[in-house]
Amino acid sequence: MINIAIVGYGNLGKGVEQAINLNRDMRLVGVFSRRDPKSVQTKGAKVYHYSTLLDYKDEIDVCVLCGSSDKDLRHQSVELAEHFNIVDSFDIHALIPEHLNHVDPVSKQSKKTAIVSVGWDPGIFSMQRALLDAILPKGKTESFWGYGVSQGHSEVLRRIDGVKSAVQYSIPNETSMEEFKMGKEITNYDKHERRCFVVADAQDHQRIKEEILNTEHYFKGSNTTVFFISEEEMKRDHQEMPHGGHVLRRAKTSEKMTQIADFHLKLESNPEFTASILLAYARAAYRMNQAEDYGAFT
Amino acid sequence: MINIAIVGYGNLGKGVEQAINLNRDMRLVGVFSRRDPKSVQTKGAKVYHYSTLLDYKDEIDVCVLCGSSDKDLRHQSVELAEHFNIVDSFDIHALIPEHLNHVDPVSKQSKKTAIVSVGWDPGIFSMQRALLDAILPKGKTESFWGYGVSQGHSEVLRRIDGVKSAVQYSIPNETSMEEFKMGKEITNYDKHERRCFVVADAQDHQRIKEEILNTEHYFKGSNTTVFFISEEEMKRDHQEMPHGGHVLRRAKTSEKMTQIADFHLKLESNPEFTASILLAYARAAYRMNQAEDYGAFT
Repeated sequence: MINIAIVGYGNLGKGVEQAINLNRDMRLVGVFSRRDPKSVQTKGAKVYHYSTLLDYKDEIDVCVLCGSSDKDLRHQSVELAEHFNIVDSFDIHALIPEHLNHVDPVSKQSKKTAIVSVGWDPGIFSMQRALLDAILPKGKTESFWGYGVSQGHSEVLRRIDGVKSAVQYSIPNETSMEEFKMGKEITNYDKHERRCFVVADAQDHQRIKEEILNTEHYFKGSNTTVFFISEEEMKRDHQEMPHGGHVLRRAKTSEKMTQIADFHLKLESNPEFTASILLAYARAAYRMNQAEDYGAFT
Repeated sequence: MINIAIVGYGNLGKGVEQAINLNRDMRLVGVFSRRDPKSVQTKGAKVYHYSTLLDYKDEIDVCVLCGSSDKDLRHQSVELAEHFNIVDSFDIHALIPEHLNHVDPVSKQSKKTAIVSVGWDPGIFSMQRALLDAILPKGKTESFWGYGVSQGHSEVLRRIDGVKSAVQYSIPNETSMEEFKMGKEITNYDKHERRCFVVADAQDHQRIKEEILNTEHYFKGSNTTVFFISEEEMKRDHQEMPHGGHVLRRAKTSEKMTQIADFHLKLESNPEFTASILLAYARAAYRMNQAEDYGAFT
């Protein structure tokens, strides 16, 4: 049995607790949280305070880190790699090489194995892109995300003054996908539609809408629609976290011959899927450690 | 530069010669054939007799074996692993473990690297099945092949008495795929349609059709249609070798949540795509050998 500790108990930590039952070779030691353990409601897992994690060092084979990339993992992955095999879902694409380089020497020194930036994007999607690049070198890859809730974009909406709650769905443009497959040029504007559902007081609607449509890097220049809904509608219709997407590669192997590959995910629960991937890689980290493959990998 | 030798020059060998131009880090040493070199028409590659292959040992980094699984590779891969890094496309699924076990000790002994059963099925599709099994342990995977020419089924048609030429297209049933995704039970009969195009004298049509529809393991119990066409139609309409398919996994991560993954290939040229994969794995074999990863892998 591989003994797993969950570090951090948000949506992802809950998903890992759920997913562990699907893996017969795994046992949950417990959840480790910075919150008061009495205040953390699990589906049965024992809860310990994060500060006691080292006391359980001999009982834990792999720590699955479920905190936030920005606030937790940048430091926590490095700290815990000194004592544990770890798996994390660090997802700030541009900083992955740096993150890997921070964790690697620590894991090597402690003779532990770390697998970082595990998930579906970065993660499985990145792997598909690398695979398709290697087997079809002369071509172009495009990724489409959705239909699903974008956590990053939803967060941006919630930070706008006057927004009580909000969620953003990314919807891939099927026409744009077909055009890409046929070899036509497509624009970033056309790739996705962004639908924002926002709860706010009526007198703020016009200002909030303008702020959303002008948010650089997120909504400006995108095909964005804003819907104002009631608190009740939000609770009734927008509590689930579906997601998915496509990695598409169109390539030539000779002048006349076009080859197309399409890796497609359709997920009813993004956190449960990501949690399942984390556990598959926790198994890999455990086995690689047994084989003396020390250091950080992605 | 990685120096590549093509061993065997059928459709696949031709594809490798074509694909090598897409890889800037590769150079073609030549084609090695059992036929008289003067009789082999390449697109520019030098042709040598197979019996001289060992004379070029120091000039070759990887041999890409393009012969038939049954007639050539079973013995050739083992023989050549004694002297070369090799990549082969051995595709008899049931015999892959045995084949790997034959090549492995030879490669280990010679400090060479062999990667066997490279291609898209077995190969990329097998890898996708293993990946999806690992990340979504509670589910079911189905593979659908086509739209495309099945070499194996076409061969079976050509062996029937009175058949002058023949080609068989496998066509996946889109409805069956959608039903699988929705969680319905599907049957093997429903998964594919098999369309046979056959050239034969008119008086043989009825007998040939009956023989086809009653061929065990290939057509009996399948959704098969037979069309008799003229030699001219065969030459005009059936010279290309498109193929493709889907690896579909439907899985649960909790009672309510279904997750679907779909890896889809749409290929205008099956041999050119397989050749491109062989070269990506030739690069891997070369690099693994540099890293002293000796033995046979798949």
